Amino acid sequence: MENINNIVIIGGGACGPKTAARVRRLDPVAKITMIQDESLVSYAACGLPYFIAGVVKPRNRLIVRDASAFKKLSNVDVLINTRVDTIDRAGHKVNVTDLSEKRSYTLGYDKLVIATGAGAVVPKVPRIDLKGVHILKNVPDADEIIGLIEEVDNKTAVIVGAGLIGVEMAEALVARGFEVTIVEALDNVLAALLDSEISDLVAKHLKDKGVILKLGQKITAFEGEDGRVNGAVTDKETIEAKLAIVAIGVRPESKLAKEAGLEIGPRGDITVDDYLQTSDPDIYAGGDCVANLNIVTGQKVLSANGSTANKHGHIIAANITGGKEKFPGVVNSACVKVFDFNVGRVGITEKQAKEIGYKYATGMVAAPDLPDYYPGSNEMVLKIVVDAQNGRILGGQGVGPGDVIKRIDVLATAITMGMTVDMLANLDLCYAPPYNAALDGLHHLANLVRNKIAGRVEGIKPSEVKEKIDRKDDFVLLDVRSHLEAERTRIEAPQTALIPLPVLSTKMDKLPKEKEIVVFCRSGGRAYRAACTLKGAEYKDVKFMEGSLTCWCDDVIGQPIL
Amino acid sequence: MENINNIVIIGGGACGPKTAARVRRLDPVAKITMIQDESLVSYAACGLPYFIAGVVKPRNRLIVRDASAFKKLSNVDVLINTRVDTIDRAGHKVNVTDLSEKRSYTLGYDKLVIATGAGAVVPKVPRIDLKGVHILKNVPDADEIIGLIEEVDNKTAVIVGAGLIGVEMAEALVARGFEVTIVEALDNVLAALLDSEISDLVAKHLKDKGVILKLGQKITAFEGEDGRVNGAVTDKETIEAKLAIVAIGVRPESKLAKEAGLEIGPRGDITVDDYLQTSDPDIYAGGDCVANLNIVTGQKVLSANGSTANKHGHIIAANITGGKEKFPGVVNSACVKVFDFNVGRVGITEKQAKEIGYKYATGMVAAPDLPDYYPGSNEMVLKIVVDAQNGRILGGQGVGPGDVIKRIDVLATAITMGMTVDMLANLDLCYAPPYNAALDGLHHLANLVRNKIAGRVEGIKPSEVKEKIDRKDDFVLLDVRSHLEAERTRIEAPQTALIPLPVLSTKMDKLPKEKEIVVFCRSGGRAYRAACTLKGAEYKDVKFMEGSLTCWCDDVIGQPIL
Repeated sequence: MENINNIVIIGGGACGPKTAARVRRLDPVAKITMIQDESLVSYAACGLPYFIAGVVKPRNRLIVRDASAFKKLSNVDVLINTRVDTIDRAGHKVNVTDLSEKRSYTLGYDKLVIATGAGAVVPKVPRIDLKGVHILKNVPDADEIIGLIEEVDNKTAVIVGAGLIGVEMAEALVARGFEVTIVEALDNVLAALLDSEISDLVAKHLKDKGVILKLGQKITAFEGEDGRVNGAVTDKETIEAKLAIVAIGVRPESKLAKEAGLEIGPRGDITVDDYLQTSDPDIYAGGDCVANLNIVTGQKVLSANGSTANKHGHIIAANITGGKEKFPGVVNSACVKVFDFNVGRVGITEKQAKEIGYKYATGMVAAPDLPDYYPGSNEMVLKIVVDAQNGRILGGQGVGPGDVIKRIDVLATAITMGMTVDMLANLDLCYAPPYNAALDGLHHLANLVRNKIAGRVEGIKPSEVKEKIDRKDDFVLLDVRSHLEAERTRIEAPQTALIPLPVLSTKMDKLPKEKEIVVFCRSGGRAYRAACTLKGAEYKDVKFMEGSLTCWCDDVIGQPIL
Repeated sequence: MENINNIVIIGGGACGPKTAARVRRLDPVAKITMIQDESLVSYAACGLPYFIAGVVKPRNRLIVRDASAFKKLSNVDVLINTRVDTIDRAGHKVNVTDLSEKRSYTLGYDKLVIATGAGAVVPKVPRIDLKGVHILKNVPDADEIIGLIEEVDNKTAVIVGAGLIGVEMAEALVARGFEVTIVEALDNVLAALLDSEISDLVAKHLKDKGVILKLGQKITAFEGEDGRVNGAVTDKETIEAKLAIVAIGVRPESKLAKEAGLEIGPRGDITVDDYLQTSDPDIYAGGDCVANLNIVTGQKVLSANGSTANKHGHIIAANITGGKEKFPGVVNSACVKVFDFNVGRVGITEKQAKEIGYKYATGMVAAPDLPDYYPGSNEMVLKIVVDAQNGRILGGQGVGPGDVIKRIDVLATAITMGMTVDMLANLDLCYAPPYNAALDGLHHLANLVRNKIAGRVEGIKPSEVKEKIDRKDDFVLLDVRSHLEAERTRIEAPQTALIPLPVLSTKMDKLPKEKEIVVFCRSGGRAYRAACTLKGAEYKDVKFMEGSLTCWCDDVIGQPIL
């Protein structure tokens, strides 16, 4: 028995089970024990909003493998309802409590894996303990929320936090017949993930779907009667709510590690090296309780993600059984379904690029995901952020009913490998009408940014144009669409003029050569061409509105595009 | 007028129009003339099968921009129905004939762009000129084919060639109510694009959809009556056909260039450098009439592709207006919809890797495109080819009802940038249940190949297993699925044994330690784990069947998986 590797894993979410299963494949005789403080292990936590929505059913489909299956399939001892109280590093053991039998004991280890995940941040506001105020972390939470959904008569809900879980839960609760209000302290939805021009399009869509947004409002208390919530109080108003979901973020569960004297990072993460080894060589950590190298910036970041946790498990399994595998880091890809919109992001945002101090360029296009003649073609808005000094792609974002996520995955791969916009412009992506247009939105985007960096054209964001209108700036807002299109959808502004692109060359003499001209169309393509034409004819100050009306988040007269 | 750049473009398909439009954006005063030998320019040739199928309508949706629009929007003179007879390089002019007015004249140029595309290869067989035998290259071809479809009473069709256009046309004609037979001289469909284990899955699906495949048969003649086709004759049989589509391939249209003394490559392509400049510095060429650098092999390849042609046009426009842009090459990505299957490929196949002499490894997995608990999840079969010496990904292929093309686009990006399987295994792709499982099929694939290269597991292809059965090899074909699954779908072979994975560890002693054991399951995952278990228990010769029953192309008892 001397040579048998005795492995103890704390945590049964994603990283823990992955570690356990792979250790068994790499080491047929190791003793493997996985400790979980709840009754279920290895379930699809990311699927919980869809279980609540009724999209995923039945409940047991969310469970990848239960404790008995782990024993049978991988000879892993799973201790459920068991809490690790302390780690005794000197003694190479953990002190645990069986929560069902209220019994404490110790377990020795040769290698210890900490996969304790991240816990929900709960705001310290009065009466948050009312029945009906809930976080969503595990299956019992989902069960309880479903119970509440079915119980309440007046279907009003407040979601605190417009992050990924917040917007997923908004969709789930609307599907369950609720009037949903999202309260978010920041001024944008998904503010940590997206630049405002992209997140404003998400916000517009949420509103189109009936979700009420209270942005820039802080939750200050909950109100209730008979111990049940009936309202959420913000710094500005009180909102009726028979159900409240608190989803303002997560933080690494590193208390055990910290108390054991392991090195802890500035974000509360358990410090690990590229091999996911902690400051104690016999202890590894992975999943949401550690930070990851951001491949773009070279800095460590928190990026709680079930996919990353699985990859960590794979690597830890190798490294505690004699291997030597490295985790290369993340590019912070994320995606979320928001009703009929697909929303994705990767790398860093423009906001982050500015904070870090990059000399950067950006581009935004609206493009169909399939050739516009092919049935089922849908619009996408795509944005990239590029290092203006070497053309390297730093980040990308997308939103719309079209297949945005394919483009974000391409960008994730490109960014991981340090691709430049010159390469992206010529990237040999799959082309056939059922799958793509001859040039992908990413090709257009890369060419746009190259043209902007080369000074061939100047872009302006729709939100900046709106500010110019509100400031009553003296400029021409030139619409180059057809008269028919302009009848359907118009921007209300005295600066507007209409000259359809096909007649621009013959009618441009009506435009003042010295005045600022901002050209727009439906999606930006014609506006770009018109801007080139005007620049070629020596108009001095010509800009085109990137993404044009498709990316216009404010009111229009008539029918909005997106 | 001295300084005005006089640009003549031969060809109005994809590269020509793209060049013309961008030259105008870069040079407002250039004189631009585009010459086209048919009446339409700038139409979506790749959409023609879908127009014939009735999926794309009306016809004018295929036309991106007509001749008058080119004049209005870009001030480009388009000469339709005009043939270029010769290029006079010394005189810097082209001799042309107006085919409508039967008038010949000359046009001078400063820079000439040859974008003549590729022409259909037509086999020299008797009576190919019968009415009802057609190629599909342009809109008039499609119009005529639609006329024939509507005319014939007995709806039988033969398609000669099982390449991209052949399989697209098979689907189109089935949609139009035809009994379709594909005759292909090679032994596989899409043989130039896919390895046989992937193309066999495509063939199986074509057959499931009622398409009759005559593989390894050469067309030798057509038969007819009253000048109309009624049969296709092969080296083995005569097949009834009131309509025949010939789609055996294309070759570069380089006759003009050759006659003008320009350098021509070994594949009949017009030789160009990285800047798409021909051997004459005042002549550029792009689109299907040139070859491209294959980024994987460093060799020039023919890769007719509308997307590449557009990129060429973009680059040529820059380089003939004083710019200096390079085309980096292609990774030969291709995709095709085959009824309910999505089929894609990129890089080089295993067959090509073997021919070139790589020391390579491959892997094949079957995986769902979404978490299997999420509605709409569909199966994908994915294969990669990897340089075994440095882990670099050389190629990828995929087939199935799932979202294969997203994965091929990720691989196209990865291969372009020289990504290794180690990086692919940890690639930070987007994860949320509506878009992907926690680990993508590509992650599983990368890990499988890494494990194979490291010698941790040995794979075997389903087709090799079938050969072993047919040879009556002495081995155990171990099924580790459940009894229920085995009742539904079984391989008929005396070597088969069933031990479900959950009881394998307790029942494995029934298996002979020295005999060859091939493990299979539904998709390969359980078989892989079982193989690890058996290897761990010191079974000497254990292989797992990659892709398992999902990739099994031969008969089964019961219900096939894919």
